[in-house]
Amino acid sequence: MSNPAILTPTEARALIREGKWNRPTSGMAAGYTQANLAILKKELAFEFLLFCQRNPKPCPVLDVTEAGSPVPKLIAPDADIRTDIPAYRVYRHGELVDEVTDILSYWEDDMVAFLLGCSFTFEQAMLKNDIPVRHIEEDCNVPMYQTNIPCIKAGRFEGPMVVSMRPVPEKDVVRAVQVTSRFPAVHGAPVHVGNPASIGIRDIHQPDFGDRVTVKEGEVPVFWACGVTPQAVAMHMKPEIMITHAPGHMFITDMHEEQYSVL
Amino acid sequence: MSNPAILTPTEARALIREGKWNRPTSGMAAGYTQANLAILKKELAFEFLLFCQRNPKPCPVLDVTEAGSPVPKLIAPDADIRTDIPAYRVYRHGELVDEVTDILSYWEDDMVAFLLGCSFTFEQAMLKNDIPVRHIEEDCNVPMYQTNIPCIKAGRFEGPMVVSMRPVPEKDVVRAVQVTSRFPAVHGAPVHVGNPASIGIRDIHQPDFGDRVTVKEGEVPVFWACGVTPQAVAMHMKPEIMITHAPGHMFITDMHEEQYSVL
Repeated sequence: MSNPAILTPTEARALIREGKWNRPTSGMAAGYTQANLAILKKELAFEFLLFCQRNPKPCPVLDVTEAGSPVPKLIAPDADIRTDIPAYRVYRHGELVDEVTDILSYWEDDMVAFLLGCSFTFEQAMLKNDIPVRHIEEDCNVPMYQTNIPCIKAGRFEGPMVVSMRPVPEKDVVRAVQVTSRFPAVHGAPVHVGNPASIGIRDIHQPDFGDRVTVKEGEVPVFWACGVTPQAVAMHMKPEIMITHAPGHMFITDMHEEQYSVL
Repeated sequence: MSNPAILTPTEARALIREGKWNRPTSGMAAGYTQANLAILKKELAFEFLLFCQRNPKPCPVLDVTEAGSPVPKLIAPDADIRTDIPAYRVYRHGELVDEVTDILSYWEDDMVAFLLGCSFTFEQAMLKNDIPVRHIEEDCNVPMYQTNIPCIKAGRFEGPMVVSMRPVPEKDVVRAVQVTSRFPAVHGAPVHVGNPASIGIRDIHQPDFGDRVTVKEGEVPVFWACGVTPQAVAMHMKPEIMITHAPGHMFITDMHEEQYSVL
């Protein structure tokens, strides 16, 4: 196979749809934004969209499909959300019941798919500014933590914010804030810089999700709102059915990363 | 009465609620963001929120109430949307049927209120940067035009974008773009700079709404997405009932204008 980084988004999705790619999507179609997926029944869609609207940092909405339509018209008009992700997870009443490579058999006419920004985009912007991204250097998952920062409730959706942490050299903290502020559609500016205890994190070395990374002398832990938040919040209210992407197996959009910068 | 500019938002809303202020809100509670109002039945709320989500420049959402709740919790938690605006318009099937000073008798348990950003905020930012705002100088309404720029459809909501125009001296065009880009929650960056015909405007001197303003030698017409768009689009599909603020009679929020800047 050719280098997955040079595939166009359409080519990458075709490969996935045809079952020829079943691994994580990191590194595919370089320069294009990848998205998190959450599918709910229409009955919950307004409240969930309102939750995202009220909590844009953890829940940056890139696209929402019309009820029953599997096409994310804004960000990938030739895609099918039911087949174009390498792995999906199906939850019933908050319990994982299936992991599948397409969701054609689960799809219903009153389902709405939410595509949410992921931090991969702003990490590229950090790297281009020579700010190190530790979990990429250490080839592991980003460390994530439950905080005591409450999300703003919307209907039945509520819960604390989950954050990801990247250790940033002191001299680069200001630039890291500036660089990520340009990308509000993919989590944007940090929610906290410095003391983990201030946002309810007891031990920086024991993340609640993902992997522990090295924090070096002279580095400051910097925390960003994390895309795990909306899934955790949705799961908590145990919807009849909810479908998500499997971790790391993202939806590849047609949008250049730079198209999500505000300036 | 004391100078309306120095009222707090809570004081300004109390005055309005008690029927002691029935004029336009321009100049009240200076420095605080004012918002447009659109109330629809819950049955249409998801589609309308999705329309706003897809068209953030004409439809910048500041807050959405829970169905049946008259309280905009995010931007004015002690307010009541049914009484705190000086004048409302009630539309049935797209026809204006009433203009009232409160909507207590029209309010229903399945109504959802949308509060959308207005351009007043970015005009203040322009003035602070010594960029002239002609319709303020000429003490008239901003000129607005139908364009050939289609909004992105969502469910039953669709239609062309309405824009407002401000003539900007050539030397200030770049700065006007920068300054307003900082405020995506209140229409943000221009949608077009220069030739009106390129976006389907035949005669710059004949606005479709608002007033004609002087365009001086060496000035460039600059066009911003306008908050009239969502009302026009909603009206076009003739909802059973829709309630809006009367033009110029806005909702005063607790949010400082600067809180809506991204940088």
